[in-house]
Amino acid sequence: MRNLHVGAAQLGAIQKNDSRASVVARMLALLEQARTRGCELVVFPELALTTFFPRWYMPDPAEVDTWFERDMPNAATQPLFDFSREQGIALSFGYAELTPEGRHFNTSILTDRQGNIVGKYRKVHLPGHVEYDTERDFQHLEKRYFEPGDLGFPTFANEGAIMGMCICNDRRWPETYRVMGLRGVELITLGYNTPSINSQRRTEGQQQRLFHSQLVMQAGAYQNATWVVGVAKAGVEDGFPLMGGSVIIDPNGFICAQAAGEGDELIDHVCDMDECNFGKTTIFDFARHRRIEHYGPITAQTGVER
Amino acid sequence: MRNLHVGAAQLGAIQKNDSRASVVARMLALLEQARTRGCELVVFPELALTTFFPRWYMPDPAEVDTWFERDMPNAATQPLFDFSREQGIALSFGYAELTPEGRHFNTSILTDRQGNIVGKYRKVHLPGHVEYDTERDFQHLEKRYFEPGDLGFPTFANEGAIMGMCICNDRRWPETYRVMGLRGVELITLGYNTPSINSQRRTEGQQQRLFHSQLVMQAGAYQNATWVVGVAKAGVEDGFPLMGGSVIIDPNGFICAQAAGEGDELIDHVCDMDECNFGKTTIFDFARHRRIEHYGPITAQTGVER
Repeated sequence: MRNLHVGAAQLGAIQKNDSRASVVARMLALLEQARTRGCELVVFPELALTTFFPRWYMPDPAEVDTWFERDMPNAATQPLFDFSREQGIALSFGYAELTPEGRHFNTSILTDRQGNIVGKYRKVHLPGHVEYDTERDFQHLEKRYFEPGDLGFPTFANEGAIMGMCICNDRRWPETYRVMGLRGVELITLGYNTPSINSQRRTEGQQQRLFHSQLVMQAGAYQNATWVVGVAKAGVEDGFPLMGGSVIIDPNGFICAQAAGEGDELIDHVCDMDECNFGKTTIFDFARHRRIEHYGPITAQTGVER
Repeated sequence: MRNLHVGAAQLGAIQKNDSRASVVARMLALLEQARTRGCELVVFPELALTTFFPRWYMPDPAEVDTWFERDMPNAATQPLFDFSREQGIALSFGYAELTPEGRHFNTSILTDRQGNIVGKYRKVHLPGHVEYDTERDFQHLEKRYFEPGDLGFPTFANEGAIMGMCICNDRRWPETYRVMGLRGVELITLGYNTPSINSQRRTEGQQQRLFHSQLVMQAGAYQNATWVVGVAKAGVEDGFPLMGGSVIIDPNGFICAQAAGEGDELIDHVCDMDECNFGKTTIFDFARHRRIEHYGPITAQTGVER
């Protein structure tokens, strides 16, 4: 057994006017709950420090940059890292990253139990669009405000497990899990901000969207024999509803823990990394069963070719 | 609307001593049912003409070859092709193929509504093992009796839709669906013979195995915005139980029809190929969203590399 006690710290709505300090205070309250339950790793959602700002069209780049972090840790987030080190709890959370070179990424980080950043990931699969779209019920401007991640899908040896990260829309793409699976991943952390409504198909209800979200995470877990920790930012932000449904999924694809509401909520599970071994050595023993000579189009072409 | 009325013709058990003629008679009875319901395409399972013979260890190659078909159509199967042409029903079914060069494949074919073979597929992901395995509760010798398919995952324009095939264990591999997705697939037919028990983990019950089977097919359908028709050979063959659970899955990943039992059973659904369009042009518009520069390991390496 290689047990790791994992917490998934769902965040409820963050309004446009909420300060980072107020959000970090809420995150610390969740971390204190996690400490009392014995968690060793706590996962927060995508863009955990602010509202989901890509729903707002901002023509002014200076306004856009107010949503980004130039350093990590920084003054606002240092208390999270202090808590990690003092209480021995590893962290993962997402934020908007502005590099010294002026590049913008949708980023997440992973720490060890001493609050040291041991891994960084930059979102590869950006959904949405670049320009204001009058056809949509609301905007989803990730392709405007971020560039696609440039780090691929790395994995990290951390706290006795092999860990990887992805973010929100990445979870719908089987390539995401597979690249990490080929690097031996045992635990994937991912945060999301997912509108309860499809901006391009109003009739698609929240139940269908929750189904899709869990379907892809469960399949990714099973097909790569890995734990998956999916954490929502949920609730109604300035009138725009985000779905909840945070989950901890085992390497068989089964849901072990699931958030009940759409507010700040901690769920947790003791995850045995050795539960990955059966799948990785039998039906999904890649070395014995994969046939890469027939996978060529996956990396040779981006779009459909008939 | 591009409607295609699809039947999934589950077969119950075929015992070792059952003749091909007896099986073809059962297939014709299902086709007659399909005709009365108005089906335009009927899908049968993997290795539809015989028992699932890879569970039997056969040291004598001549005995092995008795399970294979040297021609398709042949005398035993000609009535299926005649029915197809006379009634205007396209077919897909699986069989063990022995080529003139002496090569062995786990194969499926697709016809048009005039009984002409328009597509062939040879199973790429062979599960199981080559030599007798004393550690297993029962044998699964596909890697002994077949070589891996050499045709990749082609798609075929047929009856107003873009169709592809895969077989049994192929369905657990996201690469299978993705390669066909990159070739515009709108309908994937697949047959399976799946033991109700995991030969390497006796405690894994039938419910878990049905869950896995449906999970991977539903994810493959959703992630590629394609119909998936999964058809079982079910029931107890010479004491060895196979699970049922044949399904027709829509391009949103939802199950539209599902077999109730483990015997010969036809389920059907009118599948609108245009239902694929929404996913293919929005969230899964590959040309806009895929990032092949980060997928390299999927085709560059077979097994796990740390």
